[in-house]
Amino acid sequence: MTFTQKLKEIQTRQGSLLCIGLDVDPEKIPVHLKSLENPVLEFNRQIIEATKDLVCAYKPNLAFYEAMGTEGFQTLKETLKMIPSSVITIGDGKRGDIGNTAKQYARSLFHDFGFDSVTVNPYMGFDSVEPFIENPQNGVFLLALTSNSGSKDFQRLKVNGKPLYEKVVRSAKKWNKYDNLGLVVGATHPRELKLIRKIVPDMPLLIPGIGKQGGDLKSVVRYGCDKNGQLAVINISRSVIYASQEKDFADAARKEAEKIVKEIKLYNK
Amino acid sequence: MTFTQKLKEIQTRQGSLLCIGLDVDPEKIPVHLKSLENPVLEFNRQIIEATKDLVCAYKPNLAFYEAMGTEGFQTLKETLKMIPSSVITIGDGKRGDIGNTAKQYARSLFHDFGFDSVTVNPYMGFDSVEPFIENPQNGVFLLALTSNSGSKDFQRLKVNGKPLYEKVVRSAKKWNKYDNLGLVVGATHPRELKLIRKIVPDMPLLIPGIGKQGGDLKSVVRYGCDKNGQLAVINISRSVIYASQEKDFADAARKEAEKIVKEIKLYNK
Repeated sequence: MTFTQKLKEIQTRQGSLLCIGLDVDPEKIPVHLKSLENPVLEFNRQIIEATKDLVCAYKPNLAFYEAMGTEGFQTLKETLKMIPSSVITIGDGKRGDIGNTAKQYARSLFHDFGFDSVTVNPYMGFDSVEPFIENPQNGVFLLALTSNSGSKDFQRLKVNGKPLYEKVVRSAKKWNKYDNLGLVVGATHPRELKLIRKIVPDMPLLIPGIGKQGGDLKSVVRYGCDKNGQLAVINISRSVIYASQEKDFADAARKEAEKIVKEIKLYNK
Repeated sequence: MTFTQKLKEIQTRQGSLLCIGLDVDPEKIPVHLKSLENPVLEFNRQIIEATKDLVCAYKPNLAFYEAMGTEGFQTLKETLKMIPSSVITIGDGKRGDIGNTAKQYARSLFHDFGFDSVTVNPYMGFDSVEPFIENPQNGVFLLALTSNSGSKDFQRLKVNGKPLYEKVVRSAKKWNKYDNLGLVVGATHPRELKLIRKIVPDMPLLIPGIGKQGGDLKSVVRYGCDKNGQLAVINISRSVIYASQEKDFADAARKEAEKIVKEIKLYNK
């Protein structure tokens, strides 16, 4: 089964397009966890336990675990073990390097960590993407139009009359020989999301930028899904995992996730 | 002192533009080291001991250490401790993420690892670069035109009649308020290297792609240096660190490095 087929199956079975970003900042987790040996791991455990039936994916951003020092990656590995196989894992590292080096990253992320999919930066071109997509079971989300303000600096520049991100989208479509390549499109660009979904009707779109970054859930659902109301992976991080910073944080995260799932269903008709 | 000032001073004092890439693949190190507790660390120690008076910088590529599992980053940290402060360290991770996340990477690389400088991917624009350059002592090499074949896929596309990499170069020049920003330009593009050096006469250029990748040392020296024959950081990895895969590997690495330094001096007149 290819990555994209697996994602569809999981979205059907879970009845959800929601992805929770496990971007855990040790300074932001509830005080009562801080005396534990590994507060971040316990935080993740409780968030996962409370939400695992409500999501199609979890997406830890590697930066947050790198910033925890050498134990951070151990925490990430143990977190991945706690995520049930009924959902997808996305290793958000936005890696990109020459072929020889990209192979090392691919081995680390897919083999050592065991991620189902990763995010990759397209700037260095095809040979920097190839080592990540050679196994159809491993998914890749290639950055196209990101949610941040800097997306205007290069991604929106016109290349032969079309923006660079569109060139990335069309290249990704061409490179998608194994049905395992997707794109990252920020929720902060609803018009462009609609355009991109038209160009790639059958590819997964990872959509961050809802919540703190200001993206609108309704347009993301309307424009980001395929014709069956699937293949949009809607990522929300801070507003779910920090819904409460008290002892009830896991319950609060569940309530916030339930609210979002309900909204998504409402718009996805 | 800014990063660029420090780099100039070190290049003068060391009399060298050579950077050795510590991209260590555990499978490629000499057999006699493999029974040690940490073969890669011993390999790095001997390479550094044998070459530290011949270089201006060492550049470990993070991918190779990530691929070693959770101990890899510990090995990298210990390697950094063995590098004398008389040379620059470059953390080659090509990171790039939204501002909030880039801050985490910057903290990890500059604070926890203690790198003097890092490589950053420009695709996500200014707010993804800003957290790396806010301290003038910390250096950043922004990817402009990379040495690999994929550099043609997006970097060479024409944006208003000029290639995208040139737009990146001109943006970097504008962003370089603290005299700590440089660019990565592959040795495999000598003509473009000459053009880029004209646009940014005073910025450091990190130049990989000599050796296995086919770049020509003579044109790199001629076109990559500033008017004082400095600010080019010429990276060579595999042909130095694997000059021999026998017991004499450190001696062989030193001989290869000496040969390159001599050649650079010959061309740099």
